[in-house]
Amino acid sequence: MTDPAASIEELTVQRDRARQDHADLVARGLKLDLTRGKPSQRQLDLADELLDLRAPVVSADGTDLRNYGGLQGLAELRAIFSGALQVPVAQLLAAGNSSLELMHDALVFALLGAVPGAERRWVDEPEVAFLCPVPGYDRHFALCERFGITLIPVPMTPDGPDMAVVERLAAEDPKVKGIWCVPKYSNPDGAVYADETVRRLAAMTTAAPDFRIFWDNAYAVHHLTDEPAEIADLLALCAEHGNPDRPFVFGSTSKITFAGGGVGFFGSSPANVEWWLGHTAKRSIGPDKINQLRHVRFLRDQDGLREHMRRHAALIRPKFEAVHKILSTELGGTGLASWTNPAGGYFISLQVPEGCARAVVAKAKEAGIALTPAGATHPYGDDPTDSVIRIAPTYPELAEVEAAITGLATCVRLVGTEKLLADR
Amino acid sequence: MTDPAASIEELTVQRDRARQDHADLVARGLKLDLTRGKPSQRQLDLADELLDLRAPVVSADGTDLRNYGGLQGLAELRAIFSGALQVPVAQLLAAGNSSLELMHDALVFALLGAVPGAERRWVDEPEVAFLCPVPGYDRHFALCERFGITLIPVPMTPDGPDMAVVERLAAEDPKVKGIWCVPKYSNPDGAVYADETVRRLAAMTTAAPDFRIFWDNAYAVHHLTDEPAEIADLLALCAEHGNPDRPFVFGSTSKITFAGGGVGFFGSSPANVEWWLGHTAKRSIGPDKINQLRHVRFLRDQDGLREHMRRHAALIRPKFEAVHKILSTELGGTGLASWTNPAGGYFISLQVPEGCARAVVAKAKEAGIALTPAGATHPYGDDPTDSVIRIAPTYPELAEVEAAITGLATCVRLVGTEKLLADR
Repeated sequence: MTDPAASIEELTVQRDRARQDHADLVARGLKLDLTRGKPSQRQLDLADELLDLRAPVVSADGTDLRNYGGLQGLAELRAIFSGALQVPVAQLLAAGNSSLELMHDALVFALLGAVPGAERRWVDEPEVAFLCPVPGYDRHFALCERFGITLIPVPMTPDGPDMAVVERLAAEDPKVKGIWCVPKYSNPDGAVYADETVRRLAAMTTAAPDFRIFWDNAYAVHHLTDEPAEIADLLALCAEHGNPDRPFVFGSTSKITFAGGGVGFFGSSPANVEWWLGHTAKRSIGPDKINQLRHVRFLRDQDGLREHMRRHAALIRPKFEAVHKILSTELGGTGLASWTNPAGGYFISLQVPEGCARAVVAKAKEAGIALTPAGATHPYGDDPTDSVIRIAPTYPELAEVEAAITGLATCVRLVGTEKLLADR
Repeated sequence: MTDPAASIEELTVQRDRARQDHADLVARGLKLDLTRGKPSQRQLDLADELLDLRAPVVSADGTDLRNYGGLQGLAELRAIFSGALQVPVAQLLAAGNSSLELMHDALVFALLGAVPGAERRWVDEPEVAFLCPVPGYDRHFALCERFGITLIPVPMTPDGPDMAVVERLAAEDPKVKGIWCVPKYSNPDGAVYADETVRRLAAMTTAAPDFRIFWDNAYAVHHLTDEPAEIADLLALCAEHGNPDRPFVFGSTSKITFAGGGVGFFGSSPANVEWWLGHTAKRSIGPDKINQLRHVRFLRDQDGLREHMRRHAALIRPKFEAVHKILSTELGGTGLASWTNPAGGYFISLQVPEGCARAVVAKAKEAGIALTPAGATHPYGDDPTDSVIRIAPTYPELAEVEAAITGLATCVRLVGTEKLLADR
């Protein structure tokens, strides 16, 4: 449609049609929200059996889980997630209702109490910087910003971060203390880290002796297809390459059971786990082990977990398929957009022409379609190309997803053709 | 018995009898634990209705509580605790399963992000110190120690901390940034702060513009008698005296419902709450609102809370009475010990002759009776008089409490008479 050879007249016709379509869209007074990766009500319903817990509330070793204690979390639950998170049970901790707070606390503990291998607390360093593969997750960036940690963007590829860039930055600059990674079905690209990427992360030389990989394996079991992606075992590879304390692994059941009432996990080397427990022993009287028992009774074992995730996939796969189909129909071959077609996770990344993302989001807002702010996928909210839009299709009902994406495509056509005309 | 005029011969007889009693005690091979203030199994049973939550899991305003969000916590639950904690609902937050972690986080947020009124972050101060009424709670002290905050002991009185000392230290030294308070049924003395103490804390001049009162109202509703203690309203008094941002109020249901699966609360001035939410918005996807709804359904309202606490009192009052009775019988009139007889809370403070507390705890340990380490009630684990022993009678069964306290009294007699003889 909008091929590069299109005449100004042709483009003007397309622009005018897009303007009319957008005016019609605004007139419909939609109220649709594609902003955040939230499970839908029907996904939450899948876990309602969690609510009713039968006595006795005791662990396999006979402990009364209603009382204080048990800082490491319930061993039975850690056993269920040990495989999916690729962390031995003894090195995996089950905590409160969110992995985000564990990532926050990992930064806090490193700022206020030296991590194993560190020369000093990070708060005593003149500057601390983190590598941020982009596009990435805004909440990762926000944690660093809050604590004055410098964010250094690194380009993403379909195989994970551009490792040549990561290796160079990590090797040459001791202020680079860490990197944010979502290794499986990344937020927002849906990329799966290649084995070679993981190996290079584990093996690379770092100028900082206390470099840490923040490995947010948020979508470890969140497959959309019947061929689950597998990633290499970071913890094992780091140990193999003489860097056992490099990885901090995070995960949670937020998008497995209840988003607000799940269980978060932290896994690492024995030395890091001991360091972590040294901090949390002062902070906590132990996690909510009752909720952890609920999860054990409900998920039962690793097979139960896999089976449960297939039910999730059955609910959300149609939404991802609808996004792909509508974008293909509306924008395929126009040269105005490309998008990812992930095999898992919660997001689709939509790429529009440079300088158009903010305008598209604004036009969508006029039509009552809420999108994640353009730029949110980049440190400091600044996407220098202004071209990435994150689509979160899980929460709305299928019909709403279809209406929202159709509307979004109209906005892309409008902003895209206007830009093409302006560029002539 | 061991009156000061007792002859060496009389003392020797008493010492020998105590030695024989202790040898008999050791021979019994007891295994008793009075170390921590944990609710007993029967207390936990009182809340078992919490376990079974019926759908729908929605708040009064129709929100699906299974999903993300709701950083402030469930308004219905905050309404139930607003009165007991003396914090308006709008300024009270309901959080995770522990108030200890909220106190930890308050320190972290103040260290890494300036509190309202501060000139800088505490981590950028050359030194930060906290006033610690002693005897006090070891976990408060441990939090400060972890972060390099200097602990300055202040003597406790039956009306709360010695306010002349507090006022002087707070007024003259800008590094003094806070004070730890357990205002009702204090740990371990069981003291209830007098209205005048609270007023002076609210009104006093502080050299630090960002001075904070860490008001750990852990036993707000934990009465042992039918005449509940009332304390003055710190938040209102601070506002009245022009120091609205001075108090941080903490509380929890840990000793109301489930010790490991309760709900913690944070309350403060509007400015402090906004500052707090600014931090937690980065850290958290919201607390476990499902557990908060369980608490609302179970406790119902303020009357339900009061009624529930009467059931706790019925279970633990006999244990406190047994401690008092046995200590009176075994040690009354000996001059070897005095102890508190609190009207609420979880602890009894036993005072033995100077230089004897560690030895008594060691002798009890020989007999299989575990006590909180002597010194734990003081900063750095150092009770300079070596005379305070904390007794936590709630967790063991009544018969066990009786056996443990009888044994403890034997140890006091043994160590006390040995000291009297050594001093002659």
